[in-house]
Amino acid sequence: MPAALNEPGAASFVCTISGAKSKTLRYCALNVDWTDQESMAGRAYLDWNASAPLRDDARAAVIAALELAGNPSSVHGEGRTARHMIERAREQVAALVGTQARNVTFTSGGTEANALALTPFVQVGPDKRPFDRLLVSAIEHPSVLAGGRFPAQAVEKIGVTAEGVIDLVALEQRLAALARGNQRIMVSVMAANNETGVIQPIAQVAEMVRRHSAFLHVDAVQAAGRVALDINVLRADVLTLSAHKIGGAKGAGALIKRDESIHVADPLIRGGGQERGARAGTENVAAIAAFGAAACAANENRAAETAHMAKLRDRLESGLRAVTPNAVIFGASVERLPNTTLVAMPGAKAETLVIGFDLDGIAVSSGSACSSGKVAPSHVLAAMGVPAELARGAIRVTTGPSTTDADVDRFIQIWQKLTKSLSRDEKRGLAA
Amino acid sequence: MPAALNEPGAASFVCTISGAKSKTLRYCALNVDWTDQESMAGRAYLDWNASAPLRDDARAAVIAALELAGNPSSVHGEGRTARHMIERAREQVAALVGTQARNVTFTSGGTEANALALTPFVQVGPDKRPFDRLLVSAIEHPSVLAGGRFPAQAVEKIGVTAEGVIDLVALEQRLAALARGNQRIMVSVMAANNETGVIQPIAQVAEMVRRHSAFLHVDAVQAAGRVALDINVLRADVLTLSAHKIGGAKGAGALIKRDESIHVADPLIRGGGQERGARAGTENVAAIAAFGAAACAANENRAAETAHMAKLRDRLESGLRAVTPNAVIFGASVERLPNTTLVAMPGAKAETLVIGFDLDGIAVSSGSACSSGKVAPSHVLAAMGVPAELARGAIRVTTGPSTTDADVDRFIQIWQKLTKSLSRDEKRGLAA
Repeated sequence: MPAALNEPGAASFVCTISGAKSKTLRYCALNVDWTDQESMAGRAYLDWNASAPLRDDARAAVIAALELAGNPSSVHGEGRTARHMIERAREQVAALVGTQARNVTFTSGGTEANALALTPFVQVGPDKRPFDRLLVSAIEHPSVLAGGRFPAQAVEKIGVTAEGVIDLVALEQRLAALARGNQRIMVSVMAANNETGVIQPIAQVAEMVRRHSAFLHVDAVQAAGRVALDINVLRADVLTLSAHKIGGAKGAGALIKRDESIHVADPLIRGGGQERGARAGTENVAAIAAFGAAACAANENRAAETAHMAKLRDRLESGLRAVTPNAVIFGASVERLPNTTLVAMPGAKAETLVIGFDLDGIAVSSGSACSSGKVAPSHVLAAMGVPAELARGAIRVTTGPSTTDADVDRFIQIWQKLTKSLSRDEKRGLAA
Repeated sequence: MPAALNEPGAASFVCTISGAKSKTLRYCALNVDWTDQESMAGRAYLDWNASAPLRDDARAAVIAALELAGNPSSVHGEGRTARHMIERAREQVAALVGTQARNVTFTSGGTEANALALTPFVQVGPDKRPFDRLLVSAIEHPSVLAGGRFPAQAVEKIGVTAEGVIDLVALEQRLAALARGNQRIMVSVMAANNETGVIQPIAQVAEMVRRHSAFLHVDAVQAAGRVALDINVLRADVLTLSAHKIGGAKGAGALIKRDESIHVADPLIRGGGQERGARAGTENVAAIAAFGAAACAANENRAAETAHMAKLRDRLESGLRAVTPNAVIFGASVERLPNTTLVAMPGAKAETLVIGFDLDGIAVSSGSACSSGKVAPSHVLAAMGVPAELARGAIRVTTGPSTTDADVDRFIQIWQKLTKSLSRDEKRGLAA
């Protein structure tokens, strides 16, 4: 039972600061943060794909780990305790994707794990030939589209269908053509899209990739904890996870290998033996411990949590359809994550909606958080062939284990209000 | 007054878990960690250069920040609150080194900041020629010795004196020769060495570097908070800091630029607009907030803290000299950090000593934490020309603001015991 659902037996944490009379402490740490935080109380947070709130399990682990002064590379007791916490987290993260701890390399996040994976210099068994070519779906996260350490001219995009599913025919064609040219090919396809929630046919992609002796990287950042995710069932070669999308803390991620035959011979950060040489730098013990605890909780609670999120999504989408029959829900006819709804109203402007929701105490996003600073239209919707006019009005509503029916109902209420005023504006010719 | 010195008014934090009856929570987060942690109580932690305990200020900030669900790239209130916390931390970290927030790029740690800095593709003003050559002192941290993204053959080591100070004559010669050959040169010299604590003559290095139109990177990871560190006084072009060495949490660091004329045109992690394009990936809000609070506290308390540590070091070294007159303290005749003592007993084995201290409840290290897994002798002592025989017996004792006289006295007591038994063993021919 998800602890976060406020079931009896759920834990609550209280951190109290006693005797905080130190002027320095008030000056350096306390004067602004707590006030900001309080102003966020009572809101509905519906932007879990951007970042998920910390799970209780992760909070317990991070608070314990923060008190460990030791450097995990040190041989003394303090060091060994920190090391122990990392190694337990490694087992927990491995278990989430059905593999062994030795296949997990911790990074500072999903973006770094993607950058680590995408290099011509990945070795599989005795094969040390560099990869010539990187094929990515057109709807990948920007950190995959950037192509890691592949030269820009070696990166090719594969299109998607109108529903946001990778075009398997196009992928097969490119794989066959490149394989005929004796090119060594890496393929990167995400398990589920961060904007639409559309689940990608990884098993079919993997089958093609194997047939052409290519190599498969799967960015599973958004899928983790929301669908079953076994690296051996998916038949991915390497897989990326991010802690803060599953209720861990920001600052940890992992690149997970299918098995030990795979060797990333080109570490991104060098100069220290950490992570078996694959990633130098003192480990982020607290965030890694939280990652492990979050992975464990996500794994234990997955059935209940996904059922809960699917129920919320149905409630949300029925509500949307009832109050705005002309709203477009992207990817609605294909398999999606249980927690993600990307919806657009013809004539709406996403930024206006997001700000309107924010003023009414609801956090939603337009597209992904990474690009939300920019006003550029979603590359995902563009790849799906959605007209820019409609794409401009798309907002993403994403839920999690602690989201409630009341949060969803509140969203629908504000949606109705905002889109009503939109229709009025439209009539007055103020929209655009 | 350092809050950590347990002065009246110092803060204490208590985090309680109430109603933690959830089976999942116990299973995922609590069953091992707390036990491990308790076993560390009552020990003397004298390995601050490996990692420093969390400051109260940092703890307050990290606990506040962990509750912020928002992604700092999101435009809603939750996102803006997280962004606000990062930007305040950026000002605090900038203030520690006497510059403005806009010159700070946050990374996952010192190692990543070094890797980000050391690339041929740093642009200074309109000059876009790549750097041809990287000169590093022979006693740099492994992440600098690795040379970042410079090809191995472009990296040259500059030797040090017997006291562990960079050989300025050799540096001048190489700079002059390379400049004559019209080579574009980057120089990386640490502000203070992590093993010996020896402070490097950065002002003189910077003068030479400027004279030869070269570029200066300074790894100030160990110097921060322990000596004055103004990037403009040092005249460094870029400077590396690590949060967990100054009482922040593990998982944050920074690369700090002298001014905006400097542009790292070759980000290590790409695909997202974070850190003005210099470092993609969702920011580690909690560790960054803690970094800011720790930097602020270190800055506010520096005079008192350094005086405290210097007093402890004098007590420690007088004690060492009194009980073992033949012990060698490295770099004793030159300027060192107030908190670092590297000492060797002829005939001793560092690993044996470290284990002996650990069993008696004291955490010290042999060399740096990063390499403590390996048995290889210190590259720092080797560069100083210390015979391998003596270097093998070197242990590092490093203190911090919360270290007490009693910790030091306890160390001396155990040192006496361990070195006595060593002399016995030596007589029996069991040493080595």
